[in-house]
Amino acid sequence: MRTTVGIIGAGPAGLLLARLLHNAGIDSVVLESHDRAYVERRQRAGILEQGTVDVLRAAGAGERMDRDGLRHDGIELRFDRRRHRVDFPALTGGRSVMVYAQTEVCKDLIALQLKDGGPLLFEAEALAVEDAQSERPRVRFRHAGSEDVLECDYVVGCDGFWGVARKAVPAALSRVYERTYPFGWLGILADVPPSHDELVYARHDRGFALLSMRSTSVSRLYLQVPDGTDAEEWADDRIWAELERRFETADGWRLRRGPITQKSVTPMRSFVHEPMRHGRLFLAGDAAHIVPPTGAKGLNLAVGDVVTFARALTHHKQTGSAELLDIYSETCLRRVWQAERFSYDMTTLLHRAPDATPFEDRLQLARLERIATSRAVETDLAEAYTGFPLH
Amino acid sequence: MRTTVGIIGAGPAGLLLARLLHNAGIDSVVLESHDRAYVERRQRAGILEQGTVDVLRAAGAGERMDRDGLRHDGIELRFDRRRHRVDFPALTGGRSVMVYAQTEVCKDLIALQLKDGGPLLFEAEALAVEDAQSERPRVRFRHAGSEDVLECDYVVGCDGFWGVARKAVPAALSRVYERTYPFGWLGILADVPPSHDELVYARHDRGFALLSMRSTSVSRLYLQVPDGTDAEEWADDRIWAELERRFETADGWRLRRGPITQKSVTPMRSFVHEPMRHGRLFLAGDAAHIVPPTGAKGLNLAVGDVVTFARALTHHKQTGSAELLDIYSETCLRRVWQAERFSYDMTTLLHRAPDATPFEDRLQLARLERIATSRAVETDLAEAYTGFPLH
Repeated sequence: MRTTVGIIGAGPAGLLLARLLHNAGIDSVVLESHDRAYVERRQRAGILEQGTVDVLRAAGAGERMDRDGLRHDGIELRFDRRRHRVDFPALTGGRSVMVYAQTEVCKDLIALQLKDGGPLLFEAEALAVEDAQSERPRVRFRHAGSEDVLECDYVVGCDGFWGVARKAVPAALSRVYERTYPFGWLGILADVPPSHDELVYARHDRGFALLSMRSTSVSRLYLQVPDGTDAEEWADDRIWAELERRFETADGWRLRRGPITQKSVTPMRSFVHEPMRHGRLFLAGDAAHIVPPTGAKGLNLAVGDVVTFARALTHHKQTGSAELLDIYSETCLRRVWQAERFSYDMTTLLHRAPDATPFEDRLQLARLERIATSRAVETDLAEAYTGFPLH
Repeated sequence: MRTTVGIIGAGPAGLLLARLLHNAGIDSVVLESHDRAYVERRQRAGILEQGTVDVLRAAGAGERMDRDGLRHDGIELRFDRRRHRVDFPALTGGRSVMVYAQTEVCKDLIALQLKDGGPLLFEAEALAVEDAQSERPRVRFRHAGSEDVLECDYVVGCDGFWGVARKAVPAALSRVYERTYPFGWLGILADVPPSHDELVYARHDRGFALLSMRSTSVSRLYLQVPDGTDAEEWADDRIWAELERRFETADGWRLRRGPITQKSVTPMRSFVHEPMRHGRLFLAGDAAHIVPPTGAKGLNLAVGDVVTFARALTHHKQTGSAELLDIYSETCLRRVWQAERFSYDMTTLLHRAPDATPFEDRLQLARLERIATSRAVETDLAEAYTGFPLH
């Protein structure tokens, strides 16, 4: 098999990249190790930055998002039984975010790709990227019981943290930056209308809680739990009782309960691999960097990476110049480190570390108080949350 | 001896309080354990917030400050051999800071007090505050070889971290918040005009450095050094060479050398004692809270405390209501915790912890990059640096 751009991974990054390249008249092949149902069902992110929304629309993948997605103009911070709303458009000159699940983004992009795009192979497991530094990098993969090779001009690794693409960068050239956290998120989906019409980020002495939603009838809720927690330790009633305690307000706000349909624990990690390019292999999304989910930056960073790659390759096609391809890593990493910083800050602002000192507890409250009283600090949060510019 | 307000400590807090009370027609006695020369020579802070400048002027103690002080409209951040200036008036609607040493503030206030103020006793060592919860609190002190008692309506402890005032609050009622840092500042005074006309805060892989000044002819410079460093380990040449490395820029900026006239190491600590009031004993300044010096908040916080107390007592005198006295602790602590947060953030932004991970190093650079590119974040810094409002 032969193509211009070999894309490993049919998550939102790989699928969007295939679409952006298709729209620019550049052919690609997407290899995805799982089956279609898995990709369309796997619960992950659900908040699209303004820039991501704009890109999906411009790519022709925004129709259902604009119909079914929920535009959110703010979030609520909850601390000390108080509520403080951050108004995004007022602080950023009109920017907002869209609540629209990653599963739905994938469904939309898969449908487009199967309609008029290049090959999209499910259950095609990439085994290795070879000759990344040559003009003809290759992806060895297994599909329908036999091994095959995809010959490319460029390979883009959108295959996530555990994928093979990053392994093709020699260790001697790699720099890894990492931080783990001594807690994770117990997340649930519940068949009940969200108890608030915007996301609620709660800082509580018992730990962080997040109220989110998938739609007007499905709630998505999270609890900070100790690292290594088994979701089955948490009976439904215990989850609801704990959520109620952490979301409690002085003004008598009520949490709606409903049937829990899914329950899982997400670990928290910050991770960056540099560089994001090795020869003609480009890393995008979780293959190159992970953020803790507080602040909802993961999917949006992946979108930023593939937009940067598609622009660089289109520029190369139009002008013959590889200049944008050559600075792909630096361009992406500027945005990545800002998102790492924001995700780290949101995480440490709102979570209670098991070894937190009383001084650190007070610092958290002073930070939240400052957000609630300084328009400058609120603006910083709103700018970062709605998204750093896609250069 | 008998007075309305017994003030322990003739640092800037105690001296300013005596002046504010004098101007409000309230009598006081100041007890200071050291002699006058010590108070007038002890090198400490040197940056006055806009609010502090305004208070000193309004109190009639601004004449020499306005003649000899240096108004600063910004600071420079230096990182990655780059320079970024933060413009205070442009970001805060006209606010700035004044470079004027604590020693000079003390000289001005002492001169005023001796001219027309109440008693100011040097070498008068406070031994204990007694009966703080009664209507007649007392300060036992030793002066001119014998013990004496100062009977008061109110006692204000401006006697610093090591003073006796805080000890009068029963441990069972005290909450202490604390953080130490594994580094300190090696500070020098040098007889050489400052190499830059504004303060320069440098983040370097070898550690933090700060360029400050006492006047147009005297430089004040600091180097981050490991905790427990003896200033004598650092020969003058070694200090200058290390300063040059940490301040180095890509544009060839030069550090001026000159004779070093003083050399000392300052430890770094964050500390808050709550509450700041016990009965008729009020704690102000370092007696109640310590900040690391990064951000220059210590003296300014002390000024905020005594302004709050003077207003509260004046209000009581005029209206008979103790309401402002009753909320003294809460009022001060709101401002204190914001300054603690800012001082902690400036410290961790710019210092290199001995156990810093590569991830944390990159976070520092991402934060500095964000300050240099976001007007909102720059505004936050400028607001905090020029000072939180004196409520």
